[in-house]
Amino acid sequence: MNPDWVRLAEARQLELTKPPRSLGRLEEIANRCAAIFESLSFRLAWPRIVLFAGDHGVCAEGVSPYPQEVTAQMVLNFLRGGAAINCLARACGIELQVVDVGVASPLAGEIGEADGLISRRIACGTRNFCSEAAMSRAEAEAAMAVGTGMAQQAVGEGCDLLGFGEMGIGNTTAAAAITAALTGCAPSEAVGRGTGADEACLSRKISAVERALALHGGALASPLEILARVGGLEIAAMCGFCLGAASSRSPVVTDGFIATAAAALAVGIEPRVKDYLFAGHLSPEPGHRRLLEWIGLEPLLDLQMRLGEGTGAALAMKIIQAAAEAFTGMATFASAGVSGQK
Amino acid sequence: MNPDWVRLAEARQLELTKPPRSLGRLEEIANRCAAIFESLSFRLAWPRIVLFAGDHGVCAEGVSPYPQEVTAQMVLNFLRGGAAINCLARACGIELQVVDVGVASPLAGEIGEADGLISRRIACGTRNFCSEAAMSRAEAEAAMAVGTGMAQQAVGEGCDLLGFGEMGIGNTTAAAAITAALTGCAPSEAVGRGTGADEACLSRKISAVERALALHGGALASPLEILARVGGLEIAAMCGFCLGAASSRSPVVTDGFIATAAAALAVGIEPRVKDYLFAGHLSPEPGHRRLLEWIGLEPLLDLQMRLGEGTGAALAMKIIQAAAEAFTGMATFASAGVSGQK
Repeated sequence: MNPDWVRLAEARQLELTKPPRSLGRLEEIANRCAAIFESLSFRLAWPRIVLFAGDHGVCAEGVSPYPQEVTAQMVLNFLRGGAAINCLARACGIELQVVDVGVASPLAGEIGEADGLISRRIACGTRNFCSEAAMSRAEAEAAMAVGTGMAQQAVGEGCDLLGFGEMGIGNTTAAAAITAALTGCAPSEAVGRGTGADEACLSRKISAVERALALHGGALASPLEILARVGGLEIAAMCGFCLGAASSRSPVVTDGFIATAAAALAVGIEPRVKDYLFAGHLSPEPGHRRLLEWIGLEPLLDLQMRLGEGTGAALAMKIIQAAAEAFTGMATFASAGVSGQK
Repeated sequence: MNPDWVRLAEARQLELTKPPRSLGRLEEIANRCAAIFESLSFRLAWPRIVLFAGDHGVCAEGVSPYPQEVTAQMVLNFLRGGAAINCLARACGIELQVVDVGVASPLAGEIGEADGLISRRIACGTRNFCSEAAMSRAEAEAAMAVGTGMAQQAVGEGCDLLGFGEMGIGNTTAAAAITAALTGCAPSEAVGRGTGADEACLSRKISAVERALALHGGALASPLEILARVGGLEIAAMCGFCLGAASSRSPVVTDGFIATAAAALAVGIEPRVKDYLFAGHLSPEPGHRRLLEWIGLEPLLDLQMRLGEGTGAALAMKIIQAAAEAFTGMATFASAGVSGQK
């Protein structure tokens, strides 16, 4: 982050017709955007969320109350506009793209690009990381490249604010394994109830993460190895998306626990990603706060949302747009003829 | 609030394609709206914020770092679209109305209805409540009627989500006096730095509230008396606005400390107002949390904003609209062919 632009933005904030710092975190957001765009007159006019879907071999361990085919069923729901993210994106004026980067089941009928689906399937889900690596290094890198490409394409098309989200039954278990591997916390501190695990299911999730760490522990020395061994295809794509957004110099908004696991891996791979990253919200999943603290980001919203899909990112993106509008659209004390402090 | 409609809404939430309760506070918002509209297919399509401006005699005590003429200058800024609330309302697609209910200085030039100003001036500011009542009971009631009328008119025109905000140099001191009188907390616990008071100014604010409570203490037995003696014209109008929104059965979103002081008085006058009231955000002003706790509302946002004008309400209204869109727009497990929990 260019500190000169942050200082210029802070100075500009003091000229706007409001008491100093009275817009609170909206000022911090706008100042960061000014540094990202190296401009005091940037616009956030075209927001886009990219939602990556993938399946997880670890579902064989009974880690989710939902059957695995829900991933594919929800992809169809996204394409028909019936999911929560469709509604929130509509309400907030955000474009949505849906990418199949690793769904296990065939998608019903002839669903494909004509229906809005972006088909970039690297594999039909990951393998069960309790017994082997979730992905080969090549698969992980291919999925990352999908995400990086989606971010670069968005910026190339003119998008100026990016968000991302995910769908993948079983993926809170993968995110918990990443959290434990990355932050060093105990599996029991990284695992939460996800989509609504009962006590027995929660125990199976913790056990799955413990066994994964025992199996892969020695090999989890780098973010890329963590990603390949205990991550997921959609997590790899989101990680690549963050890298692509940062290399394209675009602000990028993370969603909940799983999205933030991907963002943390991206920051682990390339620390400068943090300069472009905004933490959209805080989910009640216990691992989410640990990841945000590990990255060093404060979430914008805390609405007890734990749905994924980019839903928290969508609401936060509207706040970020409003922050930008205030920064670039407000009158100054001089231009409006308003008296300053006595 | 009709508990039958809350239960119907909760049951509907369980049918939507998401894990139970995974939209967190968005579900609570939508369920409350369903009870307000007594419908599961309500729309929040026309949001409006009404901003009330008024001046304060207590400014004579040196309670603000800004000169009193800033109130009138900011009214002009609102009409020209250059203030923070103009930008946030634009970003969030919210209509804004500006009402002069008690500005002290003449407005520059020929500013009036043709420029978008709604002129309902009851008096040229309040009197200094350190030496006499801020308003007569008749003035307070007239200002309340302005607010009630604005809410009823909005609902009559088709608005389905209301918000309100204020502008008035010196009005955090009035809000602090209301907070101390209503909640029983000490003046020093109700007073904050407002638009940026330094230590000396903060001491003058605390002293002003202490002297006001000593002078009027015995007479502060009812919300109406508190309003008239230590309130403000714009605070009375916002109080009336809440009463009007509730009697018109419209959801209404409060803003920061001063707006919430008005909302608390409205709840004190008519407890059913609470059923229609949403707390938009939490400001760092120490009295704000006390008022929200006194009413019994949890704020939606905490972005360290302390600007007023309806800025916090604007952002919260977009969240509320998104919550409504998810509730009314999402597919069900049955309609989308998505499997439920195992």
